[in-house]
Amino acid sequence: MSEKLPKLIESLAKRARTASLSLAKASTADKNDALQKIAEVLESNRKLLAEENQKDLDAALENGLSEAMIDRLRLTHKRIDGMAKGLRELIELPDPVGDILEQRNRPNGLRIKKVRTPIGVIGIIFESRPNVTVDCAGLCLKSGNASILRGGKEAFHSNQALAQIVQDALQISNLPEDAVQLVPTVDRQALNHLLTLDEYIHCIIPRGGEGLIRFVSQNSQIPVIKHYKGVCNLFVEEEADLANAVDIAVSSKCGRPGVCNAIENLIISSKIAGEFLPLCAKELIARGCELRVDKEAAAILGDFTTVPAKEEDYAEEFLDLKIAVKVVNSIDEAIAFVNRFGSGHSESILTQNKTKADQFLKEVDASSVYWNASTRYTDGFEFGLGAEIGISTDRLHARGPMGLEELCTYKYNIVGTGQWK
Amino acid sequence: MSEKLPKLIESLAKRARTASLSLAKASTADKNDALQKIAEVLESNRKLLAEENQKDLDAALENGLSEAMIDRLRLTHKRIDGMAKGLRELIELPDPVGDILEQRNRPNGLRIKKVRTPIGVIGIIFESRPNVTVDCAGLCLKSGNASILRGGKEAFHSNQALAQIVQDALQISNLPEDAVQLVPTVDRQALNHLLTLDEYIHCIIPRGGEGLIRFVSQNSQIPVIKHYKGVCNLFVEEEADLANAVDIAVSSKCGRPGVCNAIENLIISSKIAGEFLPLCAKELIARGCELRVDKEAAAILGDFTTVPAKEEDYAEEFLDLKIAVKVVNSIDEAIAFVNRFGSGHSESILTQNKTKADQFLKEVDASSVYWNASTRYTDGFEFGLGAEIGISTDRLHARGPMGLEELCTYKYNIVGTGQWK
Repeated sequence: MSEKLPKLIESLAKRARTASLSLAKASTADKNDALQKIAEVLESNRKLLAEENQKDLDAALENGLSEAMIDRLRLTHKRIDGMAKGLRELIELPDPVGDILEQRNRPNGLRIKKVRTPIGVIGIIFESRPNVTVDCAGLCLKSGNASILRGGKEAFHSNQALAQIVQDALQISNLPEDAVQLVPTVDRQALNHLLTLDEYIHCIIPRGGEGLIRFVSQNSQIPVIKHYKGVCNLFVEEEADLANAVDIAVSSKCGRPGVCNAIENLIISSKIAGEFLPLCAKELIARGCELRVDKEAAAILGDFTTVPAKEEDYAEEFLDLKIAVKVVNSIDEAIAFVNRFGSGHSESILTQNKTKADQFLKEVDASSVYWNASTRYTDGFEFGLGAEIGISTDRLHARGPMGLEELCTYKYNIVGTGQWK
Repeated sequence: MSEKLPKLIESLAKRARTASLSLAKASTADKNDALQKIAEVLESNRKLLAEENQKDLDAALENGLSEAMIDRLRLTHKRIDGMAKGLRELIELPDPVGDILEQRNRPNGLRIKKVRTPIGVIGIIFESRPNVTVDCAGLCLKSGNASILRGGKEAFHSNQALAQIVQDALQISNLPEDAVQLVPTVDRQALNHLLTLDEYIHCIIPRGGEGLIRFVSQNSQIPVIKHYKGVCNLFVEEEADLANAVDIAVSSKCGRPGVCNAIENLIISSKIAGEFLPLCAKELIARGCELRVDKEAAAILGDFTTVPAKEEDYAEEFLDLKIAVKVVNSIDEAIAFVNRFGSGHSESILTQNKTKADQFLKEVDASSVYWNASTRYTDGFEFGLGAEIGISTDRLHARGPMGLEELCTYKYNIVGTGQWK
């Protein structure tokens, strides 16, 4: 690595830290005004964006990237509109900074308030979707955090153009320009260096595939909040409404198979597997879904085309029209299966039995545990929390949808009258 | 490393994970009963403890450990009483598990509850104080977490005996015996291996000196919550009550200089430095405190014995009767100094001016920010939060005193009536 690179990265991180101290005290009006300006500058720079995006698209074609990858890269008018709309939605959301979370008056006269504050500097490491640049910058700004963005090499020119737009807008706002910065290189060693700067950067959020998330977790000295894979399970218990269960199973697998809150495993009570499985398999297969089944399910589904499930199938996030099927003899077995193979994202039980539902809700160890609903509702907007930076599959700090409040920490403010001990 | 060691560590971590799933659903009564039993078994095994502790003390003498280190190692009757008392105090504290943190009913009929749950498995890495074994095991049990304890080599025999006592008590309780486990070796490579097991262990809390905390942070794949050094600042603003300021400065430095919430830096407004500094220096020096002063303070304190301050003195946790002194010309300069040199632990402003106090409370970036009180109140009991596992100087998950609630995470429970999309 050139000697200049670590210096450049360090200077960028230091400037972000300085900016974060101003941002932490910025008014809601100033933050909303900056978000509005970013939306406007974005909308008035479509031509520049199209040109820079075209460079990435040309390179992608040249390098033989898949059509799915190229689609993610593309900054269409609709996507630009979407980014601007997202920024304007953030303006409408309440400012989380300064909320009083708890208040205590102590016998010695100290008055203690727990106050919500920004985290400080947040590093976002992402892959090829350039819209992440603007979405994350907006979320960090509204929650009073400075952000350092490091995008993938495929979207390099698009990200540079988007970051420039954000900085142009910040320059005509009352917020510091350094509040949002893009790492101006996709050099891996620059990323490695960034991940050591825990003096200036307080939280790293990787957004992307398993490989990226693992790389970041293993190389970061800075706390990482992972938005990892979604291996979600649906358990159809023996007292489920079977017609509704077919609808939920089919929609939560086939509705959008590529999203993290889609189900990957279907668990069925042996008491109703004989009745339920053929009904459900018929609908899944009609939608092009492959079934990977255990022996019990295979015996029931003799007339259908299925594939034998291997154990590792149950831990896989297919992100595709594939589903692994498991027959169980008890709710305890179902819960143990979910806690073993699930990724701690979203899990659901379908049953009319409240006692069993309560057991599942209590004992399943995941961010979002459902009774009689599809796992597809795990989402900041669906939960009424507003825009989110991702769905945390970690347990510390944020679990599940990570929105503006979860992009904050807190501090204690203690007011006395001269107390000492 | 022998091939057996990684297997041993992995098996221990797996058993802790299994135990954590039972512990998460344990009743408050069962947890309190186990705490009571640990206290009783502890009190009835004083002889065994004394014998095992003596082995550590003999080795410490042989290895020429300092008197302070040997004192920390010693399991006196008073310390055993203290551990038992701590466990009984935990029984009185409310069980944090199951608390409903938020509740939302959505337009589509989904009813969403955010419920407090245990984190899972917590690894505590500590140095030579054997009482940490019981204190941490108790806090983790009450908050529904399994714990893996790894103590320092100096207290090896004492820790083994204490862990055996905890396990004996668990065996006659309704909680799983594997809920508390001690790593049965002080091999560094075993620790290194432990720190990679993020599949089974969810949080690492290092308790000890800077070296230990840095080692753990740099080698852990598991999220770490640091209880780092306390470089606390006291700012005597020009509108402070000077007599009270002397009391607070002297007590928060000299009361217990070895604790993390003692002050290390004294910042004084240049407007009152001429009057305040001689008054304060006289009292500090009378208590044996060394003053490391900047040029402005040196000029004022010509008649006193002082040492010139180097820049690095302002970032040092002396843990001793030493204080660094800095004269500033404005509150902005004071805040910038605190945000630069403080360790994010506890900071205080003394002033009768509310506007300036509010600015300090808002702009200082630390876990606990005081107005007109000593920093020495940063403590779980003083804050009314009860027993704590430490004072977090991190920003994610827990900041400041980390008690039972901060040893928990949350999950969303979502109840529907068959919704899908």
